[in-house]
Amino acid sequence: MNSDIRNNRMSNATLTVLKADHTPLANQEVMIEQTRHKFLFGTAAFDLVPLTNGEYAGERKEQAEQRADKLTALFNAATLPFYWARFEPQRGKPMTEQLKNAANWCIHHNLLVKGHPLCWHTLTADWLLSMSNPEILRAQTVRIQREVSNFRGLIDMWDVINEAVIMPIFDKYDNGLTRLCKEMGRINTIKAMFAAARTENPSAILLINDFDVSPAYDILVEGCLEAGIQIDVIGIQSHMHQGYWGVEKTLKVLDQFTRFNLPIHFTETTLVSGQLMPPEIVDLNDYQVEHWPTTPEGESRQAEETVQHYKTLFSHPLVKGITWWDMSDGGWLNAPAGLIRKDGTIKPAYEELMKLVKGEWWLAPTRLRTDEDGQIHFSGFLGDYALTYAGYRKSFSVSRETASAIEVQL
Amino acid sequence: MNSDIRNNRMSNATLTVLKADHTPLANQEVMIEQTRHKFLFGTAAFDLVPLTNGEYAGERKEQAEQRADKLTALFNAATLPFYWARFEPQRGKPMTEQLKNAANWCIHHNLLVKGHPLCWHTLTADWLLSMSNPEILRAQTVRIQREVSNFRGLIDMWDVINEAVIMPIFDKYDNGLTRLCKEMGRINTIKAMFAAARTENPSAILLINDFDVSPAYDILVEGCLEAGIQIDVIGIQSHMHQGYWGVEKTLKVLDQFTRFNLPIHFTETTLVSGQLMPPEIVDLNDYQVEHWPTTPEGESRQAEETVQHYKTLFSHPLVKGITWWDMSDGGWLNAPAGLIRKDGTIKPAYEELMKLVKGEWWLAPTRLRTDEDGQIHFSGFLGDYALTYAGYRKSFSVSRETASAIEVQL
Repeated sequence: MNSDIRNNRMSNATLTVLKADHTPLANQEVMIEQTRHKFLFGTAAFDLVPLTNGEYAGERKEQAEQRADKLTALFNAATLPFYWARFEPQRGKPMTEQLKNAANWCIHHNLLVKGHPLCWHTLTADWLLSMSNPEILRAQTVRIQREVSNFRGLIDMWDVINEAVIMPIFDKYDNGLTRLCKEMGRINTIKAMFAAARTENPSAILLINDFDVSPAYDILVEGCLEAGIQIDVIGIQSHMHQGYWGVEKTLKVLDQFTRFNLPIHFTETTLVSGQLMPPEIVDLNDYQVEHWPTTPEGESRQAEETVQHYKTLFSHPLVKGITWWDMSDGGWLNAPAGLIRKDGTIKPAYEELMKLVKGEWWLAPTRLRTDEDGQIHFSGFLGDYALTYAGYRKSFSVSRETASAIEVQL
Repeated sequence: MNSDIRNNRMSNATLTVLKADHTPLANQEVMIEQTRHKFLFGTAAFDLVPLTNGEYAGERKEQAEQRADKLTALFNAATLPFYWARFEPQRGKPMTEQLKNAANWCIHHNLLVKGHPLCWHTLTADWLLSMSNPEILRAQTVRIQREVSNFRGLIDMWDVINEAVIMPIFDKYDNGLTRLCKEMGRINTIKAMFAAARTENPSAILLINDFDVSPAYDILVEGCLEAGIQIDVIGIQSHMHQGYWGVEKTLKVLDQFTRFNLPIHFTETTLVSGQLMPPEIVDLNDYQVEHWPTTPEGESRQAEETVQHYKTLFSHPLVKGITWWDMSDGGWLNAPAGLIRKDGTIKPAYEELMKLVKGEWWLAPTRLRTDEDGQIHFSGFLGDYALTYAGYRKSFSVSRETASAIEVQL
């Protein structure tokens, strides 16, 4: 393990175990084990919507459940889809209940949920096209307030705005958001969307998110911060259908954003296990293929690159989460971007990630003996833990702040 | 002439000529002629510094004077060099007097002067390297205040900051400004530089200037405006050593900036009359050649493209100035970018520009007869004019605001 990971992700913990009478549990063997990472190891989990809403049956349901088991075994966070065009295909009939079912399922399976996205020019509602810009702004604002309010407590983390760099100059087709953003400017659009979300859930974690990692994006973040917009997390997409960025580019991208001293999430991380998309494609959506198979060589490459990418990001102190995109092959662009093949079997990348996330970077059940003050000392990754002793099972957390003085009362 | 030029650059003027006794000069023939464009047709005029400071002698002096004559015959604005490394090669010994001589010469030759640039990571003072960032900020601020104050009245237009998009990530060599900008961020750096300039000359025209015409630049401008920085003019470089942008790209670039409704200057316009620089060059400064000859074919192409480029820009209502870069061949990068060849003769581009600026877009001396109210009506380009009658010569201006009611008192 490299020293950056040790320094940025671990803590030397001192735990005092107290008996029911508040006296130290001296000279006893206890067991501790990690139960959750503080770091968000997430994945796009759109598949959970049909699964949790009874849309699968028979063998398909069984397969979906197996995929879900693999998801929860590895990850502690899930991104659920709120694309306006799909979430509210008929105006006034949003899929609120379906998404609540999915979000509840996630929470019961220890997955922190993020909603994605609240405002985006792609897959926005097509009825905006008949509106004036003030009407579009109102509709978009009301939609944000509705979702953030309805899901408060279930979803307290949102990609508020997606791809604002290109939003006002997006020229593939007419849409309400591009019109609005062109008139209002990027910063004022972002300001309005963040304000709408913040009003309904002041303590929510609100992200800006973009695939553009040129200076345009860090300048936009700077402009937003100067304009007083409270961005909680900077979201960076890394859809590497055309090839792994490599460590150098990844660090260079991170370097652009470190000066803000804000948490960074890699929100959409793609590494394919088949042939690479040709480099001349500019908009990934232009690459439409019927078959894009996973290959043995591709799977080896994907596994290696995944390990490298996660190690690079996990080493960086400001990165607080990585979301894989998608969990299974055949999602966006029909790409072999999954950790799971179409037949439901896992790829080497899944196994390698598991070795890191629940192996090298994880404290497995460990027996330790308390000293005469009831203390144990251990080095662990930031997150949640359980202590078991004589039929008791107590949970505790290891954070930077509390690591030196954790108390567990039996 | 296209209708955009007519609509955006001309006015239908009504001029009332009054005799000394304030009664109308009825039914008399007068002559009017344009003397100056409101639009800034400018050029980099670095050559004027040695010329006006006695650094040329004999034949070289004669040649420089001939070049200067050609400059003043065509242009009404000049950009003078304030590159810190050259302006103050020895710390504490700035070339203030030399630049004052050049600026005075310009003013006496009806050239509006712009100083370029006050803050730039390239050609900045190398003694900044031994300073801490707070010291660099102070030195840079003091330098701006000194120049803007010393030249107030002579130079009231400044490129305050040059190439801020790349400034904090410029990685060719260490320099004080990149260090500062990396720490402060672009917007705060720009804010500090504009504040320093504004304090010393509140009515100065202050520009931001960049070669980057990607969304990064318009996002930066938006961020600056949101942060309350008063940018008077957006400066856009267009060094087309690798080939003319063409109308479509030019309009697209303009389109990015029109939403700010701020004046736009094309501050550094280059079209070469020799072979094009290879497209793979990213930083133009990397292309170093000993010989880069002007060719007959290149000169024809340059002339055509120049006409096209100036027509495109002159048609756009927000563009208020175009600066050619350089006046003579063999300047920056030794490029055949001049309107004048190394032997002092003019190229077709010079002649074509002259046909526009002092021909198609100009009111040559014209005889008109006043009506019984002493009025004449004419259509003219915005700018300054002279009326002559019976030994009198009176000047007047045609602006959007006054065009319908101009009075000239003999």
